[in-house]
Amino acid sequence: MSKDHAPAPDTRLTPLAARLPATVPFVGPETQERQTGTPFKARLGANESGFGPSPDAIRAMRNAAKDCWMYGDPESHDLRAALAAKFDIGMEEIVVGPGIDGLLETLVRLTVTEGTPVVTSAGAYPTFNYHVTGYGGTLHTVNYTADHEDPDHLIAKAREVGARLIFIANPDNPMGTCHTAATIQHMIQTVPEGCLLVLDEAYIDLAGDGFAPPINTHDKRVIRLRTFSKAYGMAGARVGYAIGHAALISAFDRVRNHFGMSRIAQIGALAALEDTDWLAKVRAQVEQAREDLYEIAEDNGLLAIPSATNFVTIDCGADGVFAKAVLDALRDEGVFVRMPMVAPLDRCIRVTCAPPREMKLLARALPKALAAAREQVGETPS
Amino acid sequence: MSKDHAPAPDTRLTPLAARLPATVPFVGPETQERQTGTPFKARLGANESGFGPSPDAIRAMRNAAKDCWMYGDPESHDLRAALAAKFDIGMEEIVVGPGIDGLLETLVRLTVTEGTPVVTSAGAYPTFNYHVTGYGGTLHTVNYTADHEDPDHLIAKAREVGARLIFIANPDNPMGTCHTAATIQHMIQTVPEGCLLVLDEAYIDLAGDGFAPPINTHDKRVIRLRTFSKAYGMAGARVGYAIGHAALISAFDRVRNHFGMSRIAQIGALAALEDTDWLAKVRAQVEQAREDLYEIAEDNGLLAIPSATNFVTIDCGADGVFAKAVLDALRDEGVFVRMPMVAPLDRCIRVTCAPPREMKLLARALPKALAAAREQVGETPS
Repeated sequence: MSKDHAPAPDTRLTPLAARLPATVPFVGPETQERQTGTPFKARLGANESGFGPSPDAIRAMRNAAKDCWMYGDPESHDLRAALAAKFDIGMEEIVVGPGIDGLLETLVRLTVTEGTPVVTSAGAYPTFNYHVTGYGGTLHTVNYTADHEDPDHLIAKAREVGARLIFIANPDNPMGTCHTAATIQHMIQTVPEGCLLVLDEAYIDLAGDGFAPPINTHDKRVIRLRTFSKAYGMAGARVGYAIGHAALISAFDRVRNHFGMSRIAQIGALAALEDTDWLAKVRAQVEQAREDLYEIAEDNGLLAIPSATNFVTIDCGADGVFAKAVLDALRDEGVFVRMPMVAPLDRCIRVTCAPPREMKLLARALPKALAAAREQVGETPS
Repeated sequence: MSKDHAPAPDTRLTPLAARLPATVPFVGPETQERQTGTPFKARLGANESGFGPSPDAIRAMRNAAKDCWMYGDPESHDLRAALAAKFDIGMEEIVVGPGIDGLLETLVRLTVTEGTPVVTSAGAYPTFNYHVTGYGGTLHTVNYTADHEDPDHLIAKAREVGARLIFIANPDNPMGTCHTAATIQHMIQTVPEGCLLVLDEAYIDLAGDGFAPPINTHDKRVIRLRTFSKAYGMAGARVGYAIGHAALISAFDRVRNHFGMSRIAQIGALAALEDTDWLAKVRAQVEQAREDLYEIAEDNGLLAIPSATNFVTIDCGADGVFAKAVLDALRDEGVFVRMPMVAPLDRCIRVTCAPPREMKLLARALPKALAAAREQVGETPS
């Protein structure tokens, strides 16, 4: 999706900046609400957690509000210490940043310059691509295989083009599929010399056991990205972290915005991390909502792709034009969802797991949306 | 000040990233507290506002905590709309970002590449220099004149080296001095072709009338940076904004982290902006604290530099070694202050305006700190 801007010819910009497209990875739901003049009734498009943050985290952030006259600790010491303890690694092997998006930007800045080859899957996380393009890198893509990212093909392509970075999300976004820990571990072990595997584990807290390979910070071939935005329900607080070899993590300190973290968010994330009961409860709620979404899909004659995340990607049974019509019709019913942007993934819509009220709204809206889409574009068998 | 890191030789880094120094612009007070094992009693080093944020802003942020499961609006629409109304400009002429530091990073990214000449004053804001170095730019400096940044020399140097950017803060940090609106307007009008004046107005809300030239977003020669961190007392929330020509502002949208803003911070900043009574009250409190600091300096036989900001820079009457000894001795007394890093500015310490309790702590600690410094290094007449 894109946002139009007047071109900005300005000799003050670098040649790279001057030629970048005015394309943004995602348009926010608020923008859509302003365009239609109607607020969404169900916010199911951004994989936010409607189950909310831990009550302890809410309390900590409420208490921290009055103290936000102070900058956050530039080292995020207490949060990093808690994370290091949780993962049994050194603090120098973790960097905290403003969400995975912000960390991806810094990582790309550290590793990609004009023409640097980078490998990802066609239709995978567009914000990663946005940053690679933004630093002048050259994207090479491989296709999904059976709605899964394809580790062997990613590795082969990286070898072929001499890639500096390979991106994979496990579990995957936007398809919700997941590889086993063994598959990912094998992928790490086959990363070509001089290449780095960017393992986005934004949704790993929701995948259950057996999908995350052991954390090994001696391994220079992989950096892992995690977040408080999904299972922890704190997307709007902006806290993510990267785990990797100390030499790579220390490079972040040479370029990052040291006073860039919200003090309220640091305090909230620490409280959220400690409330393991809440995380367990959210996991159970997400599992229930996945079942609800599978059932809603089935009730409408659609195929839901089994998910290891807090969203379910639903095959609308035709092509991207049809899925887009379903998405638009859902919007007209007050339901915000998103969809993959590349064929054949774009035959699907992507729906976030949410509390029962929102799931009911979707159950009511989807049949109408499908009817409207069939009315509008017909249904091409896929 | 610097933080030591093991060097990180890693073929995965870009050549630029691999050769960047492990120097950070500022070490946080929390780091110093962890090193000494003692919390500061008075936090007067980072020009944070101990008068706090508006009670309306605190209330808004407290209420927003539970909703931080939602991402912030990537367009910061409501805040930008309020700012645009305040300044009577278009929304497309304002970009909101995570503090001025974050906006400076993006601005440098858009304009500086390896070898790009950039002009600033020797001893001016180190975080700007950090970003210029981080993108491979070449810094050229001119000296302060009588503790003021020197617009004519900055312009002349920019012309001489063919600079892409000129940085000036008005009021200045770390000296607290200020130029009139007319002086800055004249500076804007003499910016060389193809060069951009980066006008950091972080402290302008505290300078009184007559120091900000009229905002003219048709002028491509200047971009202005402002913040909620200083007068508005929300440093730890991370909200700043840049005002400039729409063509330049739109370039930010091509590279910035669109979902990088804290939702809580966006809501808090909007409430803070609307509470003009609180701002007036803080201004009066800051003025009183400046008077307190002038008096404390005088009581100790030191010269305070008249300030247009929420800090007062105090000439310790000798050289940088002596001022550093005063700073260290203040730290031992539980008082956190900072100091300029370049001679001859480094004969001073920089002390933040704060409520009476902190001013009293300083009044008690400074004579002891001066005595300790004289004991330790002697006092060289400057």
